[in-house]
Amino acid sequence: MDLDVFARTALPRVERTMAEALERSRTAATEPLHEMMVYHLGLDPGAGGASGKRIRPLLVLLSCGSAVPEPDGWRRALPAAAAVELLHNFSLIHDDIQDASPTRRGRPTVWKRWGIPQAINAGDAMYTLAYRALLDQGAVSGPEIALEAQAVLQETSLALTRGQFLDLDFETRSEVSLEAYWEMIGGKTAALLAACTELGALAAGIEEPRRTAYREFGRSLGLAFQAQDDLLGIWGDESQTGKSTAGDLAAGKKSLPILYGLGRDGEFARRWRAGPVHPDAAAGMAEILETEGARRFTEAQVHARTGEAMHYLEEAEPAGEPGELLAFLANSLIRRRD
Amino acid sequence: MDLDVFARTALPRVERTMAEALERSRTAATEPLHEMMVYHLGLDPGAGGASGKRIRPLLVLLSCGSAVPEPDGWRRALPAAAAVELLHNFSLIHDDIQDASPTRRGRPTVWKRWGIPQAINAGDAMYTLAYRALLDQGAVSGPEIALEAQAVLQETSLALTRGQFLDLDFETRSEVSLEAYWEMIGGKTAALLAACTELGALAAGIEEPRRTAYREFGRSLGLAFQAQDDLLGIWGDESQTGKSTAGDLAAGKKSLPILYGLGRDGEFARRWRAGPVHPDAAAGMAEILETEGARRFTEAQVHARTGEAMHYLEEAEPAGEPGELLAFLANSLIRRRD
Repeated sequence: MDLDVFARTALPRVERTMAEALERSRTAATEPLHEMMVYHLGLDPGAGGASGKRIRPLLVLLSCGSAVPEPDGWRRALPAAAAVELLHNFSLIHDDIQDASPTRRGRPTVWKRWGIPQAINAGDAMYTLAYRALLDQGAVSGPEIALEAQAVLQETSLALTRGQFLDLDFETRSEVSLEAYWEMIGGKTAALLAACTELGALAAGIEEPRRTAYREFGRSLGLAFQAQDDLLGIWGDESQTGKSTAGDLAAGKKSLPILYGLGRDGEFARRWRAGPVHPDAAAGMAEILETEGARRFTEAQVHARTGEAMHYLEEAEPAGEPGELLAFLANSLIRRRD
Repeated sequence: MDLDVFARTALPRVERTMAEALERSRTAATEPLHEMMVYHLGLDPGAGGASGKRIRPLLVLLSCGSAVPEPDGWRRALPAAAAVELLHNFSLIHDDIQDASPTRRGRPTVWKRWGIPQAINAGDAMYTLAYRALLDQGAVSGPEIALEAQAVLQETSLALTRGQFLDLDFETRSEVSLEAYWEMIGGKTAALLAACTELGALAAGIEEPRRTAYREFGRSLGLAFQAQDDLLGIWGDESQTGKSTAGDLAAGKKSLPILYGLGRDGEFARRWRAGPVHPDAAAGMAEILETEGARRFTEAQVHARTGEAMHYLEEAEPAGEPGELLAFLANSLIRRRD
């Protein structure tokens, strides 16, 4: 079985679990609220492929499946898989408002279609539904594990808000330390991936120290993934990423290579501080940044975090076919070109 | 002991529990996020009285104290009391953005001080901290009750978002049915009061049918409270409410008396539909509304919901001094003039 085959088997079940969670808060009078959430999740008939890649639920299910010996053991983690995808999408609804993003996955964002007040509220509703979906873990795993799962998701949500605070705050600052950058990414990206692998392990019912190894595998994977994303945001191949090569430079985003370049305080830093980078100047700026060592530095960071991830994955002792798929998924996330 | 004495004993402990919850997500790099939450809750040294009345935690504690025979049994419900106050305040942070309200309790709102993106995020963080605070109910009540408490708060949060959806939606509609009004209030006001009394009962460890009686007492109390609020919004004594007598009429708020008047389709409805009510015209409009029976209708609604609340309170069999204080608190909420 390859990852695509697994995804085609498992993801429709995750989507059904998410849809069931959404149904729970549906009433005749509040139908449009339901519609906003279904739309954002890409569960509506007109969605096409506008649903995202559902990487997080796959991580949950494969973590569980690789930790539990029974065949199709991944099914035990369906409530957790739905929960992390709902939590991720809650954060995207609010992100889109905070960043004033008009489109996502090729469609207007929720706030663009229904206005900011209703979009804030739809995000709040989806947030609760994430926790509500996770509550069903109790029927599979009993009350103690279900309660621990709630605690894991809560710590994750708090980390997300800390990461989001920093991300918004960085926009108003001229200088950001690399330390602050890693703290931001630790909250915004890595905490949720750590929750995916930990919740999968928790649903499998495994004990320490393997549970911690699963969690730290997810966290390192998240850091590597984000550093790779930052690399692609400047030196990615436009034909593969589908994003403009001007990317993060023209957007003024304080990504890892850019922060490195600013820290070097050379030609790149001088030009950056002179004012916004025009899209036409982005290619030249990327070249200067590369000359100053930012590309090599970022690649080294990806490499180091990947090494950590693989170390923890080994400690987690994932078994069977799900274990192989988990390693494959991790590798494809880090080595991706798009 | 009167209610003030109880509040002076109990509320500092609730505030300490809330402050402890906030401390859990505090880091050096995210200090301003912590500051936003402390500020909104009125826990900062400069707050003066800007903390709200803390009615909800009092309801939780007195429900628990009146349901459990041990002296000072209300202490068992401190995690739940902190949780409902945090949940209430999360909803206020987002409400203030949604309603574009510049001030609350005499101070600038969070969004006005820190901007909309950070205020959305601070609300999200406080939302999580409400659930995190409630998790500590496990240390007092064990994992099964703690998990049930999470479920109660989740259902409440979902009801809140449905109520908020309707409230925002009403602003865009010319006509709103009384049925839709009660559904909105059921979500926005009554669901949280129902959670207060139910969580108190749950922390006390009492069984059905008393637990349901406590919950429904809170719900009816919430409906009566809101109808009374709507009454004061039009016929309240300005010197006592501290709000303009023009109140809800000039604000164009679709409150219970106004919806009743619109349903009558008489002189009031004709003038209302002609355009916004000027503050100078509000007193005259209030008189017409009273002539058409809206005041008597609303008073009858307050009376009916109060009767329901007292019926459920009797069924709940609250005991001892906390039981007396609970009835006193309920009465003062409904019969208040400010």
